[in-house]
Amino acid sequence: MGDTSLPSTGKAACVENPGADFKVVVRDDVPVPQPGNMEVLIKLSVTGICYSDLHYMLEDLPMPKMSEFNVVSPGHEGVGTIVALGTNIPVSLSLNLGDRVGLKPVYTSCNSCLMCTTDREMYCSASLQTGLHRPGTYQQYVIGAAEHVVKIPDGVPDDVAAPIMCSGATIYRGITEAGLKPGDWVAFAGAGGGVGHMGVMYARAMGMRVIAIDGGEEKDQMCKKIGAEHFVDFTKVKDVNAEVIRLADGSGVHGLIVTATSAAAYRSGAGMLRTSGVLMSIGLHVPLIADPLTLVGKNLKITGTAVGTRNDVKMALQFAAQGLVKPVIEHYKFDKIPDAVYKLKSGKVAGRCVVSFED
Amino acid sequence: MGDTSLPSTGKAACVENPGADFKVVVRDDVPVPQPGNMEVLIKLSVTGICYSDLHYMLEDLPMPKMSEFNVVSPGHEGVGTIVALGTNIPVSLSLNLGDRVGLKPVYTSCNSCLMCTTDREMYCSASLQTGLHRPGTYQQYVIGAAEHVVKIPDGVPDDVAAPIMCSGATIYRGITEAGLKPGDWVAFAGAGGGVGHMGVMYARAMGMRVIAIDGGEEKDQMCKKIGAEHFVDFTKVKDVNAEVIRLADGSGVHGLIVTATSAAAYRSGAGMLRTSGVLMSIGLHVPLIADPLTLVGKNLKITGTAVGTRNDVKMALQFAAQGLVKPVIEHYKFDKIPDAVYKLKSGKVAGRCVVSFED
Amino acid sequence: MGDTSLPSTGKAACVENPGADFKVVVRDDVPVPQPGNMEVLIKLSVTGICYSDLHYMLEDLPMPKMSEFNVVSPGHEGVGTIVALGTNIPVSLSLNLGDRVGLKPVYTSCNSCLMCTTDREMYCSASLQTGLHRPGTYQQYVIGAAEHVVKIPDGVPDDVAAPIMCSGATIYRGITEAGLKPGDWVAFAGAGGGVGHMGVMYARAMGMRVIAIDGGEEKDQMCKKIGAEHFVDFTKVKDVNAEVIRLADGSGVHGLIVTATSAAAYRSGAGMLRTSGVLMSIGLHVPLIADPLTLVGKNLKITGTAVGTRNDVKMALQFAAQGLVKPVIEHYKFDKIPDAVYKLKSGKVAGRCVVSFED
Amino acid sequence: MGDTSLPSTGKAACVENPGADFKVVVRDDVPVPQPGNMEVLIKLSVTGICYSDLHYMLEDLPMPKMSEFNVVSPGHEGVGTIVALGTNIPVSLSLNLGDRVGLKPVYTSCNSCLMCTTDREMYCSASLQTGLHRPGTYQQYVIGAAEHVVKIPDGVPDDVAAPIMCSGATIYRGITEAGLKPGDWVAFAGAGGGVGHMGVMYARAMGMRVIAIDGGEEKDQMCKKIGAEHFVDFTKVKDVNAEVIRLADGSGVHGLIVTATSAAAYRSGAGMLRTSGVLMSIGLHVPLIADPLTLVGKNLKITGTAVGTRNDVKMALQFAAQGLVKPVIEHYKFDKIPDAVYKLKSGKVAGRCVVSFED
Repeated sequence: MGDTSLPSTGKAACVENPGADFKVVVRDDVPVPQPGNMEVLIKLSVTGICYSDLHYMLEDLPMPKMSEFNVVSPGHEGVGTIVALGTNIPVSLSLNLGDRVGLKPVYTSCNSCLMCTTDREMYCSASLQTGLHRPGTYQQYVIGAAEHVVKIPDGVPDDVAAPIMCSGATIYRGITEAGLKPGDWVAFAGAGGGVGHMGVMYARAMGMRVIAIDGGEEKDQMCKKIGAEHFVDFTKVKDVNAEVIRLADGSGVHGLIVTATSAAAYRSGAGMLRTSGVLMSIGLHVPLIADPLTLVGKNLKITGTAVGTRNDVKMALQFAAQGLVKPVIEHYKFDKIPDAVYKLKSGKVAGRCVVSFED
Repeated sequence: MGDTSLPSTGKAACVENPGADFKVVVRDDVPVPQPGNMEVLIKLSVTGICYSDLHYMLEDLPMPKMSEFNVVSPGHEGVGTIVALGTNIPVSLSLNLGDRVGLKPVYTSCNSCLMCTTDREMYCSASLQTGLHRPGTYQQYVIGAAEHVVKIPDGVPDDVAAPIMCSGATIYRGITEAGLKPGDWVAFAGAGGGVGHMGVMYARAMGMRVIAIDGGEEKDQMCKKIGAEHFVDFTKVKDVNAEVIRLADGSGVHGLIVTATSAAAYRSGAGMLRTSGVLMSIGLHVPLIADPLTLVGKNLKITGTAVGTRNDVKMALQFAAQGLVKPVIEHYKFDKIPDAVYKLKSGKVAGRCVVSFED
Repeated sequence: MGDTSLPSTGKAACVENPGADFKVVVRDDVPVPQPGNMEVLIKLSVTGICYSDLHYMLEDLPMPKMSEFNVVSPGHEGVGTIVALGTNIPVSLSLNLGDRVGLKPVYTSCNSCLMCTTDREMYCSASLQTGLHRPGTYQQYVIGAAEHVVKIPDGVPDDVAAPIMCSGATIYRGITEAGLKPGDWVAFAGAGGGVGHMGVMYARAMGMRVIAIDGGEEKDQMCKKIGAEHFVDFTKVKDVNAEVIRLADGSGVHGLIVTATSAAAYRSGAGMLRTSGVLMSIGLHVPLIADPLTLVGKNLKITGTAVGTRNDVKMALQFAAQGLVKPVIEHYKFDKIPDAVYKLKSGKVAGRCVVSFED
Repeated sequence: MGDTSLPSTGKAACVENPGADFKVVVRDDVPVPQPGNMEVLIKLSVTGICYSDLHYMLEDLPMPKMSEFNVVSPGHEGVGTIVALGTNIPVSLSLNLGDRVGLKPVYTSCNSCLMCTTDREMYCSASLQTGLHRPGTYQQYVIGAAEHVVKIPDGVPDDVAAPIMCSGATIYRGITEAGLKPGDWVAFAGAGGGVGHMGVMYARAMGMRVIAIDGGEEKDQMCKKIGAEHFVDFTKVKDVNAEVIRLADGSGVHGLIVTATSAAAYRSGAGMLRTSGVLMSIGLHVPLIADPLTLVGKNLKITGTAVGTRNDVKMALQFAAQGLVKPVIEHYKFDKIPDAVYKLKSGKVAGRCVVSFED
């Protein structure tokens, strides 16, 4: 068995004093857990850092707290290798020691309710979240539910796969659930961020025409480099809606996908949509004012989605395996994980931070 | 030709002094118009009275005014007989003198843009509205665009057909565009009104389970009689959302269709939806506050639609021809049309007012 | 525990000599099995008899044989009560002793592949079939997989629920997967049979217009009684396609659902479809000739589906709970089950045979 | 007016002796027609040569004949400039002298029936075809229906636009109507032909993974160059289905689009589809045998479509305007048009023949 060669402790970044003044502390003495019924033990090589982790550590949203579940390591974008197998793992999953697998935000779900059987497992009332209800991917040795870990296809390195487990799959879900089609115009509010920049790449890989909205020269250059046809800098352009409409055939975009943490993008966003356009909200933000006269008069749709499903993750990885999508990554060594967290908190990351557990 | 036997003048209800203190005046000396290129002349037997007419007469919404187009008779739910044919009417339409036809809100459209060719002609930028850009159905002899008048199927009397031209087709569109399916739970806010009560009937005819929301005993009884499984009286029930959720399997409804003129229904409506539920806004109302956390957390959809297309009208009439839908009608003689208008304005009509031009 | 009060043996109808000359033998000494991991033991009160059972007993199709799995009792439409619980049953399923539940054709599936998570569990490569890979519902005490047994809603008696587990859910699936909508015309080839007659009822409950196709006066009367607008008797009408087209507005039907075992219905069926119409094949029959010129020229769709999923079964039961669907049943005592099987084989059953295990 | 400067005669390639031994004759004395009600006169610079033209000239399919409509010039892929405007042209079309426009297979349609208003104008019972019911694009000066000519976007040269009017839009329609999505595997049977090779490009531009099926080294190289991930040479590979399945994850393709004139591709094509896969038939070919057991057992869909609509043409052109699609063209001078026709008839063209009317 792989078990015998396992160390008894491993690395983990742990939150102390969750709330406005939370602290991230690096440890190397966290006990390595044992996989149980239908579980696997994974030795992670990398983890991504997602803004949702910050919400959990800041406890700034009306949501459950990590502490209620005795979880101290957040994180839900981890990739590594199976190092031990628990019991009762179905043969049909063909999970083996040494397989490269990823952990995603949905840790597990009931697998038989309407949500689970219609590709909406993130809304299963019995679902649990990685890094909230269960220890997260800031921990080197971590348990995964056999039915929910996802195999990483050949040709996708661990550090590329990590941000796809959450950011990539989430934006893939947002784009597809919005019903956008090749040839459609799509705008991303927050296009330079961890989720947004992958949206630019996925939309482009799907033959859509992308207008990136964000602020600053660095993000402008990055967005154009990865496939945006236009960049609208909200720090320079006065009437963002008018500018987006002008760029998109004078009619507006078919879809606006909001990944920004800023409130502004929401309040007025519907104004840049063409008739029957869709505003897809991703992430956790401020209230939006929807004018029925506009909804009715332009047949708009306003909706939102959370993270991706297993299927979304698999499809999102497939685009990377083909070389069509490659996240922009800022690499960190494990002991620098607090720096990565604090930098993300400051809003200064273009692309995604990925932390390596290896030396 | 039918022309020779036509009188030179006919009846019409005309608006005077549009605005808060508008007046409806009955006349019998309005000149009978001549149909031109691709037009037909219709002698109406009945017209419905729709709340949109009131908006045009009250000029209380930020929309074009009838007076800009020299139109004094509103109305867009008229049924009658073709009494004269204009020129260049395509043979494929097979329109003949004596055919029973109806006029609907969309008077005409360009018939070749993306909107017109994808069943969304009400959003055609060249479309014109009956009773706003062109004289409406409060006028006995009225012109219709050959490509947009709709034949009334046998077995559907004129007074039944009239409210279907707008109310029926609009709510049919709302239900179908919301993506609701047989077996789904659907709530109607404003279920006792002209549009709402037809929604109850259409939804029921489609095998949906209906929760009617409105106020008062009269509307309660009517809604249950026409197919509502439950009635929630907002004048009695404190927490309407909680009650609707309780009635709908404890999970909430798949769709909420808001036809009410009241603001309240909008602001909180999304709260009664189950995961992936749809709030469909019909009509012209106050702003709605949409919480991204809810949109994301429950995968909700908020949208709106205007009136029905030709195809919606035809389908909506077909349900009536089968006897599955029969609007609740309050009948008025032509000279009492002002009474009908004022009663509707007071909010006291259960069902729909239909006015007869015949004595 | 419920276990202590359980008998050690129970009733079962067993197949002997499978093939053209198979025999059904009634026994009362079949051992009562023990539920294992994620399993429940059900004491059935009734089972339906489906034509698929005959295929398994006749071994007349190129499919796996019951004998390969040491199964001697077919059957996949059983309803009864949970009398014992196995281990590891997830709390979220809330399955308890005494619950009324049903067994359906899909005995179990992997619950995590693309098929299982996108409402197509019958196509899961790891799925097993009740009454083929596992003992079927001709057996009084039978095991069910916890994640796949379906609770029977109040108000749906066992004998009504039984045929819905397969026939009802299958035709519900066929209708919905064909994309048919309220108001559409749908024809059923084999409308008087076990599956077909439920199709007539479901389609009608969904607001569709039904043309029933079958042979004989008895089926004519039954079909009209349960909601068919027209009956086309293929034993009397020479050109069935022409007649169906005539009845359906002169344009043909939106959908043809073939449940007949006769080849004829297939070969020519597409001819009765209107533009963009769908031919949905249900059941296991002879090859069909599809003419590309017609497919292209009329934009037809030819497709097929197997049985329903858990979700289909639940929805199909819901229509029964509302009183909108009520299968036509021929009742049999348990010791007469061979008679029911032989009668079905002779093609003489109108509706569905249901067998009671109680005296 | 543009009219005064127009010549009285122009060039045209005319068919003589339609049937197996038809001849194409080049003339320069064909009268220039006058545009009438809602018509424009176009001076074509180029025309494509489509295999359908051959069917019309060969009269080898059970379809109407050109001679019934006194049409001697086929062709339905023409691009040129508006040189005269007829009467009653709607302002909303904004058609002007000098505009670059294209003619497509659907010459005109009624614009108000269900087909026309739901993006299926090619199935309008009053529609007419360019080059069959009306003179085709082998004629230099040709009439177009104002509502059906399509403006060519800047950046798309005439010779690039021409094959998109039919081949490009048709395959665009086939791909989208098949419901294929970015990331899906799609195979094209006849991938090296005029329609097929554009399919490879459109599918690739939409983020699909393409398996090209055709015969010969030249087509192999072309297909890979324009975006095919794999090429399966049916002249070398024994079991094409097995090979396609192997290449497509071992599961088969999501869609097979058949554009080949060969019967073989049809008969067995469904065998290479994965569960729920779609076989889309484009073009006019031999009967297909569909096995209900396979349809049911794998939930397959078999369907077909004719040419594209106005909207399809516009979208297809848009991909070219972005540089994502660029047909492979064999150029011919006008007086060599017979050579182009005969070469196409021999099956030796890789890509598309485009003929220039200019010297």
